[in-house]
Amino acid sequence: MIVQTHIAALQALLGEKGVLTRPEDMAAYQTGARYDEGRAALVLRPGTTEEVSAAVSYCVRNGIAIVPQSGNTGLVSASTPDMSGSQVIISIDRLRQRFDLDHANRSLHLDAGLRLSAVNSRLENEGLFFPVDLGADPALGGMLATNTGGSRFLKYGDVRRNVLGLKVVLADEDGTILDLTSGLRKNNTGVDWKQIFIGTSGAFGIITECVLNLERTPRQTATAFLVPASGEHVMPLLQVMEERLGAYLSAFEGMSQNAVAAALDHVPSLRNPFQCGAVPDYVILCEISRTWAPREGEQSLDEVLETVLTDIFERDDALLADAFIGPPHEMWALRHALSEGVKHAGRLIAFDLSFLRGDIMRFCGYMKEALPQQFASVRICDFGHIGDGGVHFNLAVPRDSAHLADPAFETGLREWVFKVAVEDFNGSFSAEHGIGRKNQAFYDLYTPDKLKQLAAGLKTTLAPGAIGAVTFG
Amino acid sequence: MIVQTHIAALQALLGEKGVLTRPEDMAAYQTGARYDEGRAALVLRPGTTEEVSAAVSYCVRNGIAIVPQSGNTGLVSASTPDMSGSQVIISIDRLRQRFDLDHANRSLHLDAGLRLSAVNSRLENEGLFFPVDLGADPALGGMLATNTGGSRFLKYGDVRRNVLGLKVVLADEDGTILDLTSGLRKNNTGVDWKQIFIGTSGAFGIITECVLNLERTPRQTATAFLVPASGEHVMPLLQVMEERLGAYLSAFEGMSQNAVAAALDHVPSLRNPFQCGAVPDYVILCEISRTWAPREGEQSLDEVLETVLTDIFERDDALLADAFIGPPHEMWALRHALSEGVKHAGRLIAFDLSFLRGDIMRFCGYMKEALPQQFASVRICDFGHIGDGGVHFNLAVPRDSAHLADPAFETGLREWVFKVAVEDFNGSFSAEHGIGRKNQAFYDLYTPDKLKQLAAGLKTTLAPGAIGAVTFG
Repeated sequence: MIVQTHIAALQALLGEKGVLTRPEDMAAYQTGARYDEGRAALVLRPGTTEEVSAAVSYCVRNGIAIVPQSGNTGLVSASTPDMSGSQVIISIDRLRQRFDLDHANRSLHLDAGLRLSAVNSRLENEGLFFPVDLGADPALGGMLATNTGGSRFLKYGDVRRNVLGLKVVLADEDGTILDLTSGLRKNNTGVDWKQIFIGTSGAFGIITECVLNLERTPRQTATAFLVPASGEHVMPLLQVMEERLGAYLSAFEGMSQNAVAAALDHVPSLRNPFQCGAVPDYVILCEISRTWAPREGEQSLDEVLETVLTDIFERDDALLADAFIGPPHEMWALRHALSEGVKHAGRLIAFDLSFLRGDIMRFCGYMKEALPQQFASVRICDFGHIGDGGVHFNLAVPRDSAHLADPAFETGLREWVFKVAVEDFNGSFSAEHGIGRKNQAFYDLYTPDKLKQLAAGLKTTLAPGAIGAVTFG
Repeated sequence: MIVQTHIAALQALLGEKGVLTRPEDMAAYQTGARYDEGRAALVLRPGTTEEVSAAVSYCVRNGIAIVPQSGNTGLVSASTPDMSGSQVIISIDRLRQRFDLDHANRSLHLDAGLRLSAVNSRLENEGLFFPVDLGADPALGGMLATNTGGSRFLKYGDVRRNVLGLKVVLADEDGTILDLTSGLRKNNTGVDWKQIFIGTSGAFGIITECVLNLERTPRQTATAFLVPASGEHVMPLLQVMEERLGAYLSAFEGMSQNAVAAALDHVPSLRNPFQCGAVPDYVILCEISRTWAPREGEQSLDEVLETVLTDIFERDDALLADAFIGPPHEMWALRHALSEGVKHAGRLIAFDLSFLRGDIMRFCGYMKEALPQQFASVRICDFGHIGDGGVHFNLAVPRDSAHLADPAFETGLREWVFKVAVEDFNGSFSAEHGIGRKNQAFYDLYTPDKLKQLAAGLKTTLAPGAIGAVTFG
C-alpha cells in the first residue's frame, strides 16, 4: 500500500538496512509477544537519533502513521501495527551503542534500544543494577514508554522513579529532538517534560536515549513463603513486615492457590514446597535483601527473617497460618513459573489491575463469590504485587467450555470485570501494562472527558503527527 | 486599583472572611519569608476547593492576575505579588479540614493548606511520617508546587516521588477542578497529569488537596561527623558508605568550614564538637536509620556505624581524615543552624544549585580558586545535600565591603555564578527552590526556545488565565 517513492526516499535517509520491505523480514515486528498480529506497510530501523528524527519527520510530512516499537514484549498491542497495512513501524532495535556509566552519580546514560537483560549483565561487575525487575525482557525505550513496575516496586519503585533523563524525537514535521538527558537528580526549572513521555506508549514521540538511576546490587537475600491465616490477614501482615523489616523488604508477592497449583502441575522443574503437597489458599513470597557483604557480629538475613517471623507467630494474634524460609532461587522459580502455569489452566483472559493496597484482597474475595455466579466455568488464577496494589487477575476459560471461542463471552467478561474493578472498587484497569489498542475502549470509557480534551490539546502542542497505537484525546 | 464591584462580587462568592482588603490584614500575605515584598490588590481566602474554583473562574473571566499562595515560605518570590498592586493573591490557608489517613495504603489524603509540621505532628502516634524533611515549614500545596527536596532526599526522594495524587483548580474560565486523587501506587492509564502541577509554582492552577505517600518513622538513628581527607575524597567516601550501609543511609550532608564556623560563631546554643575547636575544611553529617525497634542479638546502629567507619579507616586508602559518632540531636542542631549562621557572615547572596554528584566538589573546588579573582571580598559559605547533587552555594558580602549595597555588583556576581554552574559544569540554577520572579531572568536565559514554546502551548491548553509569578512560555 505504500508507494515506491516513499520507500526510495526512506532508503535515502536511513540506508538499505534501515528499511525492511520483505514480508519475511517484517514478520517478527508485526507479531506481538503474546497476543496480537498486524500488518505493516514498512519497518524502519534507524541507526541513530538523527535518523529517527529524519524518519519521523518524513512520515509526519507525508501523513504516514507511525507505530514506535522497542523490544516488542508488551501485552496490550501498543507496539504492533493494526491490520490496515498502512502503518509504518519505527523500531529502535539498532540504537544500542551508547552505554555511559557514571559511578559517582550512580547513573547510566544509554541508547534506548538496549534490552534490560543486556544492561544488567553489562553492569554485573560494577555492583550496580537497574532495579525495575520484570518477567519479560523489554528494551529500555519501551520500558520508559510503558512505565513498567515489576516485582520489586515495593522497594525500588517504578520506571518513572528511576529515570533521570531521556532523549525523545517528537512526532512533528521537524522530528524535533528534545534532549532531556542532564541526569541531574534535583532540577526544578519548570515543567519536567520527561514525565510526559513516561507511560504514554509513544503517543508523543520516540524515546531514543535514557539516563537511568542505578541501585547497588544486593549481596545478601533471604526469602520465605508466608501463608496468611486468611485473605483478610494479608494487609495487616504486610504492615507488620514493613514496620519490622523496613527498607530490607524488597518483595511481597501474592499467589493464589489456583495459580500456584497450575504452575506446579505444568512446569516440571518445580518442586512442591508445601507440607504433604497441599497448596494453601493464598501464599506470599516475601524477600528481604541488603547491599553489603556479611559482616562479623551481624545476624544473617535468614536469622533476621527467622526472628521476625517467630515474633509474629508469638505476638500478633494469628496473622500467619504457616511460614517457612527457603532458598531464594527455588522460591522465585515458583513465582516466575506462574505466568507459564496459568496458560495451561485454560484459555487465558488476563487483567492487569491495581487498587489501594487495602482493597486488593477485598476485590479478590468479592470476585471469588461473584464471578462464578456470572461466568460459571471460569477459574480465577490471580497473583500480584500486593505491596504496591497491583494484581494480575488472570481468568482461565477451561478448554472444554462451550464459551472457549465465543468472542461475546470474552467481551462480556472483560466489561464486567473492569466495571467491578474501576466503578465498584475505584481501581485502575491498567496497573503497569499500559493502554495499547487492547485497552483503548476502556480508556475511552473510563477517562473523564476533560482529561481527554486536555490530552488532545497536549498532543496538538507536542506531537501533531499520527503516532502510536493509542489515542488519548 | 481594583474596582469595588469586583470586591462585592468576590465577597458574594467567598463570604466576608474570604476577602481581605485592609492593608494591615494583607501585610503578611504580601511579604515573603526572607526576601521580597509586593503589593496586592486583594487577598482571597477561599474555604473549599469549590470556592477556589469560583474565585479563579471570576478572576480569569475578568482578566485579573492571580498569585497562588500556600505557606509563603519560599525563597524565590513565587508566592508574593509584584509591586503593581493589581494582582490578587489566592491563599489556600483556610483549606485545612481534610485529613484522611489510610494505614493499609500507607497514604494520607489531606487539604493542601495544612503545614508540614502539623501533618507530621498529627501522624506522630501512627508510626508514620511524610519523609520530605525541610528547614522551613511550608504548607503541602506549596511543597507540591515547588517539588521540594530536603535533607533526606538520598533515602526518600523529593516531593514528586512521594505524591500519589492531587486535586487542582485550573486557571481557566470555568475554574475547572481536576480530581487526580485516586491514591493508587500503580496506575498507567495515559498521561500522568499530576506531574504537570508538581514543581511548576502554580503556573497552571492551584493545588487544593493532595494524597501523600507516608513512610514508617525511624525508631533507631545514628549520626557521625566525617572529615574527608580532601574535597576529592567526598564522592568516593559516599560511594563506600552507600555500598556498606545501603538503605540505612538517610543523610549525607556536606558543610564547608566557613558555614560551620559562621554557625558556631553566631548561634550561642551550639557546642563546638571538633578537636581543640578547629573546624575542618569540610565536614559531612552522615545519618543512618531504620524503622524497627532494637532487637535482641542485633547490633545497635551506633555499633554498625562504628564497624563501617573503622573498616574504612583500615582498608580504604586514606578516605577519611577523622570521624566521630555523636548524639543525633546535637549533630543536626549544627546542620540546621547553618542557614542562620551564614546570615551573620555578611549580606547573603544565595544560590540553590545542583550538579551530577561527581561534579559538586569539583565545582566547589573551582569556585574557591576562581571566585576571589573575580569578586575579591566575597566569602563562600556553602553547604548542601551531597548525596543528591544539591548545594546551597551561599556567598557573603562582608558588612564593610564597598559593594555591600551595590546592585550592579550583585547582578554581576549572580550572572557569573550561574554561568559557571550552568554553562561550564552542566548544573541547574534551581535545584529545589523553584523559579519564581527571582529566577525568571535565568529561566529565560537558560531554557531552550523549543521548551519555552512547548510550555506556552501547554499553558494555553491547560490554563489560559493569568496565574503565578513565573512565565514558562
